Amino acid sequence: MALSKYKDDALEMEITLQQNNVQKLGSDLSDFHIGNTSSVKSRGNMRKQTKLGIEVSKDENYSEWYVEVITKAEMIEYYDISGCYILRPWSYAIWEFIQEWFDEEIKKLGVKNCYFPLFVSQSSLEREKTHISDFAPEVAWVTRAGQSDLSEPIAIRPTSETVIYPSYAKWVQSHRDLPIKLNQWCNVVRWEFKHPTPFLRTREFLWQEGHTAFQFKAEAEDEVFKILDLYTQVYTDLLAIPVIKGRKTEKEKFAGGEFTTTVEAYVPINGRGIQGATSHHLGQNFSKMFDISFEDPNGGGRIYAWQNSWGLSTRTIGALVMIHGDNYGLVLPPKVAAIQMIVVPVGITAQTKDEQKTVLIEKGKEINDVLMDAGIRAELDIRDHISPGWKFNHWELKGVPVRIEIGPRDLANSQVTCVIRYSGEKRIIPIDGLATQCRDMLEEIHCAIILEVRESHTKIVLEWDDFRGLLDQKFILLSPFCGRIECEDEIKKESMKEEENDPRVPAMGAKTLCIPFEQPDISLPTNCINKNCSEKPQFFALFGRSY
Amino acid sequence: MALSKYKDDALEMEITLQQNNVQKLGSDLSDFHIGNTSSVKSRGNMRKQTKLGIEVSKDENYSEWYVEVITKAEMIEYYDISGCYILRPWSYAIWEFIQEWFDEEIKKLGVKNCYFPLFVSQSSLEREKTHISDFAPEVAWVTRAGQSDLSEPIAIRPTSETVIYPSYAKWVQSHRDLPIKLNQWCNVVRWEFKHPTPFLRTREFLWQEGHTAFQFKAEAEDEVFKILDLYTQVYTDLLAIPVIKGRKTEKEKFAGGEFTTTVEAYVPINGRGIQGATSHHLGQNFSKMFDISFEDPNGGGRIYAWQNSWGLSTRTIGALVMIHGDNYGLVLPPKVAAIQMIVVPVGITAQTKDEQKTVLIEKGKEINDVLMDAGIRAELDIRDHISPGWKFNHWELKGVPVRIEIGPRDLANSQVTCVIRYSGEKRIIPIDGLATQCRDMLEEIHCAIILEVRESHTKIVLEWDDFRGLLDQKFILLSPFCGRIECEDEIKKESMKEEENDPRVPAMGAKTLCIPFEQPDISLPTNCINKNCSEKPQFFALFGRSY
Repeated sequence: MALSKYKDDALEMEITLQQNNVQKLGSDLSDFHIGNTSSVKSRGNMRKQTKLGIEVSKDENYSEWYVEVITKAEMIEYYDISGCYILRPWSYAIWEFIQEWFDEEIKKLGVKNCYFPLFVSQSSLEREKTHISDFAPEVAWVTRAGQSDLSEPIAIRPTSETVIYPSYAKWVQSHRDLPIKLNQWCNVVRWEFKHPTPFLRTREFLWQEGHTAFQFKAEAEDEVFKILDLYTQVYTDLLAIPVIKGRKTEKEKFAGGEFTTTVEAYVPINGRGIQGATSHHLGQNFSKMFDISFEDPNGGGRIYAWQNSWGLSTRTIGALVMIHGDNYGLVLPPKVAAIQMIVVPVGITAQTKDEQKTVLIEKGKEINDVLMDAGIRAELDIRDHISPGWKFNHWELKGVPVRIEIGPRDLANSQVTCVIRYSGEKRIIPIDGLATQCRDMLEEIHCAIILEVRESHTKIVLEWDDFRGLLDQKFILLSPFCGRIECEDEIKKESMKEEENDPRVPAMGAKTLCIPFEQPDISLPTNCINKNCSEKPQFFALFGRSY
Repeated sequence: MALSKYKDDALEMEITLQQNNVQKLGSDLSDFHIGNTSSVKSRGNMRKQTKLGIEVSKDENYSEWYVEVITKAEMIEYYDISGCYILRPWSYAIWEFIQEWFDEEIKKLGVKNCYFPLFVSQSSLEREKTHISDFAPEVAWVTRAGQSDLSEPIAIRPTSETVIYPSYAKWVQSHRDLPIKLNQWCNVVRWEFKHPTPFLRTREFLWQEGHTAFQFKAEAEDEVFKILDLYTQVYTDLLAIPVIKGRKTEKEKFAGGEFTTTVEAYVPINGRGIQGATSHHLGQNFSKMFDISFEDPNGGGRIYAWQNSWGLSTRTIGALVMIHGDNYGLVLPPKVAAIQMIVVPVGITAQTKDEQKTVLIEKGKEINDVLMDAGIRAELDIRDHISPGWKFNHWELKGVPVRIEIGPRDLANSQVTCVIRYSGEKRIIPIDGLATQCRDMLEEIHCAIILEVRESHTKIVLEWDDFRGLLDQKFILLSPFCGRIECEDEIKKESMKEEENDPRVPAMGAKTLCIPFEQPDISLPTNCINKNCSEKPQFFALFGRSY
């Protein structure tokens, strides 16, 4: 079923697209599984052949829905190497907004950008044992250049601690060389063997990685939380996604680090948690391995630096799609929308006089200019080979926050008709004062979207018997936990989904998302949530199925 | 000989540095050849041990000088994989200024940013034969992930034509899908086996690559030149480097393209040309190979798109260093200087009263604020463990365009003393109206630097007998040329340097830098510059030894 509100247009559009596409389709889609692509050539059910509208509802099959949204909204193009995807301008723009904001914020903290090599020698990579044991299975190795075998295989960075810290060892001679605060925006490669998902689990992804070194532990710890706050803001203030801040358990923390802090988001459709970004305090572990040390200014010998690393990736975009998208496609929060408002002249038919058509288009241009002058990212769609309905579908699918229609009646009344993407609500707005109202509207949409997501999906669970059932009902669970790795392994194993439950819910067991900084306002029970565990709980941990 | 103008301070500085460095030096520098590093431990000649000042003059040995400048100015850190280098914040900032400017300009042309994968399958890579034959010897191959051998080796992009164009084939169905104008900022890998040089010849480098496709040849060609103009502006308006615009010969053009346009700069110290950036018209060659085609809207069957690709890399930074740097270190053109003016309180001695010291520092802050408010990237250096002389050395080495000194006498006269980096000129400027004067000064410096480089190094040469001699005298030569690949090969072979000549001049033969758009104002002779060539010359080509 094609989920188009503009059925006639969808039909029209579909025919146009079929004429154009029929020659090239097929092979293009071979790399991924999508609803009804194979039916393009059989003309049995017209609805199913519509290429623009989303054909699978989010509720029905969220994996297929996700693939449809990201491809049809022109965010992702599939690629002939599994696990690698093309970020098209529509998704890359989101990344640019995040970059712009975050880059400015970290520069205020004194962080400077730089660039370290893509390649890392085996000996550097393996210098920190705990660290490498976590990454080793996913490291991609270059062994040949042109026709020559390299004398030693060279790894592609899965993260850059081992790339960067040998230099820190050179640069740090005195306490005066600290702090060092560097960041890079780059690609990293983790050759995942699990089923890849665009944005969420990919073999190459883009991120920023910050690497800092301090004289004092307290300075380093302070920064860990400052960065975590910035990550929180990326989610709440830009992406309109609420997150829970916390610390990772021993099992889930960054390999080789002291402790990991995280922001965790929640995906309502399948009840899964999703790690948003992590800020690690590395303690002196790496500085000892790499000899990043300085003379104690008070004469007490060599002191090792205190280090952090922190990263935010293009996974953010996947979270945005999964959380905000709906049955009509993508829903973009205004702050990261390449186009915030699309202006569409309407009511032009074959009967419309040329003169009136010109007036409508001119008015459209004027409105577009007014909005752009007000700092709103507006665009005018006056393509004349497609109908307004087709355009409505197109821009809804792409998630543009507001559509502004201007038709003959609007013209007569000096008004426009605004349609808000996430709610479908229509509003008549006078052209006089339009820019101010539109700016307010974008703010309002941001707040409304985040509120919609914020409704509670968290339950406090004290008894194991309630645990799996609530998990299967798509809750994330705050439960007393001893914190031990073996216990967490057991909980994961024991909380696999029961077969008969909701097919949208994945089968995997629960893991800890984090130990929330904000603990429940009740006293900690005496038993760990794991019924087989006899250790005392240390805190409430947040459990959930996770990406 | 240490080229320090502040010898006492250099000595003081050296001792501090030795105390700090002596433990860690040695192994750090093993990867590259530098003037006098081994003498650090032998205290025979104090001058040679100075770690901050440049120890080799540009004239004496420009390769050693180059390594000293880029390392001591903290632009580059060497790395344990040959041909890979670390771009430290001081050089990366130059890249950020270029990115910011160029990105804005191409967006005005309707270009959008995106990201295509780092990896390319062998079959895609090899689809265009001429193209791949040029790149194949330098392609790095991933053959293993974790402990598993990949079923097929995967290449790392040396450039992205073959990565991107299969998608263009999918996206282009109708003439309405054109133009496509995409750009990406990314890393590429070319596993050079020649001697690597930081920025100039590296195995991994950063660049932007634009890839566009048009319905009409004329649109594509028009864009090639628009982009070339932007590249020209990057060199002239940001980097203060004059360039010659032209077309590449058949031998030197981009493999698989129709024609290549280029901006070529000139390095006075060794008389070498350096390719600045290239903008290629690909014609329909790739679109035919990759089937990027659309229905003729006038009903004439399938038409192949007209394509361009264009790129500018971090090589720009190397050109800047080679061309502007001097015996005191780096000289940064103001537009790309992370710090444009460094404010240094001076005249504080052990005898200075605390009160006066405070006043000087406060005044320094005030001046710094005034400059920053005027949009000048100023910074205040009030470190109290090092002397003003040390600071002067340090910031001169790093190429900061202007130093602003504020001492007791300046304070008394409500003035500052400005010292201009490239010329060493001192100017007394009243504090009243300082911001305006400083802004003008930065503009003036930009113009002065570019003028200094612009003095003519080009000679018109019509006879082969004059050719090599002038080349050895570090000229680049405009000579009549038939344009044939074999003829160019012969010229290169025949123009190797004579042994006894200037050691600064490299031995390599001359190649064509470009066919300048602006041809000499004399009529083309009847003979090609190659005395053994009997073909008629087609144009004047610019010949030179080149990077």
